[in-house]
Amino acid sequence: MSISAEAIEAAHCRIAPYLHRTPLLTSRALEERTGVQWIFKAENLQKVGAFKARGALNAALQVPDPSAGLATHSSGNHAQALAYAARVREVPAYIVMPQNAPRVKVEAVREYGGEITFCEPTQEAREEALAQVLARTGAAFIHPYDNDDVIAGQATCAKELLEDAGAPLDAIYVPVGGGGLFSGTCLACHYFSPGTGSHAGEPEGAGDAVLSLRTGRVETAPYVDTIADGLLTRLSPRTLAILRDHADGITLVTEAQIVEAVRWCFERLKLVVEPSGAVPLAAALADAERWRGRRVGVVLCGGNVDLSRLGEWFGNDPATTPDASITRSYT
Amino acid sequence: MSISAEAIEAAHCRIAPYLHRTPLLTSRALEERTGVQWIFKAENLQKVGAFKARGALNAALQVPDPSAGLATHSSGNHAQALAYAARVREVPAYIVMPQNAPRVKVEAVREYGGEITFCEPTQEAREEALAQVLARTGAAFIHPYDNDDVIAGQATCAKELLEDAGAPLDAIYVPVGGGGLFSGTCLACHYFSPGTGSHAGEPEGAGDAVLSLRTGRVETAPYVDTIADGLLTRLSPRTLAILRDHADGITLVTEAQIVEAVRWCFERLKLVVEPSGAVPLAAALADAERWRGRRVGVVLCGGNVDLSRLGEWFGNDPATTPDASITRSYT
Repeated sequence: MSISAEAIEAAHCRIAPYLHRTPLLTSRALEERTGVQWIFKAENLQKVGAFKARGALNAALQVPDPSAGLATHSSGNHAQALAYAARVREVPAYIVMPQNAPRVKVEAVREYGGEITFCEPTQEAREEALAQVLARTGAAFIHPYDNDDVIAGQATCAKELLEDAGAPLDAIYVPVGGGGLFSGTCLACHYFSPGTGSHAGEPEGAGDAVLSLRTGRVETAPYVDTIADGLLTRLSPRTLAILRDHADGITLVTEAQIVEAVRWCFERLKLVVEPSGAVPLAAALADAERWRGRRVGVVLCGGNVDLSRLGEWFGNDPATTPDASITRSYT
Repeated sequence: MSISAEAIEAAHCRIAPYLHRTPLLTSRALEERTGVQWIFKAENLQKVGAFKARGALNAALQVPDPSAGLATHSSGNHAQALAYAARVREVPAYIVMPQNAPRVKVEAVREYGGEITFCEPTQEAREEALAQVLARTGAAFIHPYDNDDVIAGQATCAKELLEDAGAPLDAIYVPVGGGGLFSGTCLACHYFSPGTGSHAGEPEGAGDAVLSLRTGRVETAPYVDTIADGLLTRLSPRTLAILRDHADGITLVTEAQIVEAVRWCFERLKLVVEPSGAVPLAAALADAERWRGRRVGVVLCGGNVDLSRLGEWFGNDPATTPDASITRSYT
């Protein structure tokens, strides 16, 4: 295996000064309902609002001469993460984004000082646009997940969870898209807590990883239709190889289960978690019976939500809100 | 003064086993925009979703014989807090709530095992209903804020913020409704960090406290119209007396400033904060120029939001979200 325990430990030392050690939360209500001791890692409170800052920083900090800048293609949180990493290294960030990227994510990249190149929303267009950017600038390319340094960085999230949980965990749940976080989680458990199972949630409407693990090849999803917009990418041979060796399971979840998990994060944990970041909770709850009496960590891994979607997810029913004219009599 | 430093220290020891020491967060983006070093205390992550758990517990744990139960009237977070405190003491909780209390808060009280008596939404009706409950049950009444033990409990929030901030704070911002949290904050700063100013935000549409401090009497608000439904109560002579001695200022904020502060908590801090809990941030931002180059603590003190309101607050504009049919080409 090319990513060693020492590489993950070194990654942790390297990136810690620029990141938050995100807090762990518990929920007595959910414990009582399920009989499982859940430990939530609020990685939505991480810099740039997602775990992606870990991997991007670990890779960026190891580019020998980054003076020509750093570059990537991403429609999501890796774009912000790389812009942040470039800012830490005080070099330019060049980000290729599809024209239809969410406005909030475009604005966030700009706020971190990233230079955006828009492209058609196809895999070919973004690879071509990236090639042009690299040729023009000489910037170093940092892939969102098909990169050992990125994976070692993502592994630090599970490493912290294992260290801070106070007692051994029976399992950790993360999501799986390209497999950077999931493969890093597998390695962290393998090296630092072999008794902890590595599990992922995956949307039914982007179910490529579960299929890839079954066939042993990188597959595309049978169909794609999910609000978990951070999990649309497929595995790479690199992440698949790690998952084949170390993953303990992938649980498919429906869109309704994802929305319910997002709602639960808002309502009970008081955390803003994006759909992709709530997929691990949706999967863990679907598996709850299996973990009765056990301790299970769940990484709530991103919080970059377009607030204009919330009415759509949670409904907008003024009838349930207090009548202002009656409320007034309270003073 | 009847509430001593020792009373606050004892309160902290007494309640700590049953509560979270809520984390502090920072925001580089907001620091850069304002030139102020802001330290946010995420008290929305507290048990029952609000600081109210502190005061209710401190009072409940000092009831000599609580076997007949604990009782209060509240339409909001104190109701949940008292139900939680009663559960800690393993006695019944009797809560008088107005018929028009938000559904989510009613459900939360029930979930903590509280027995609810509904009443007409007037001050007279709730006092009468409470008197009947007390006569019937013999339960101990714990007022939401007009109670020294409650105030000493609320003071522990600022005490933790002062202890965890790493360096002295120039000011702390909280909201003011009945004045329990604000008077507790004033006392914590007075005893433990005399150089830290105690400031509150208050909605223009519930501006009784700023008026009361001016006249020296408990006043009612000139008009009442605000989404900050936790701040509709007026001061008591007890809280007013503490504020007259120790408060450094109250800043009035508009409804638009409150919604903007709530949005900012969701979008940037990834925290679900209710309008009443975001009023301190709204006030602190209104005062930002004054604090340039200084360190200021802001207590985000509650997170019990009726999610069906979010569409109304943040808009619901599907045009800004990615087109699913285009997103599909990404796999």
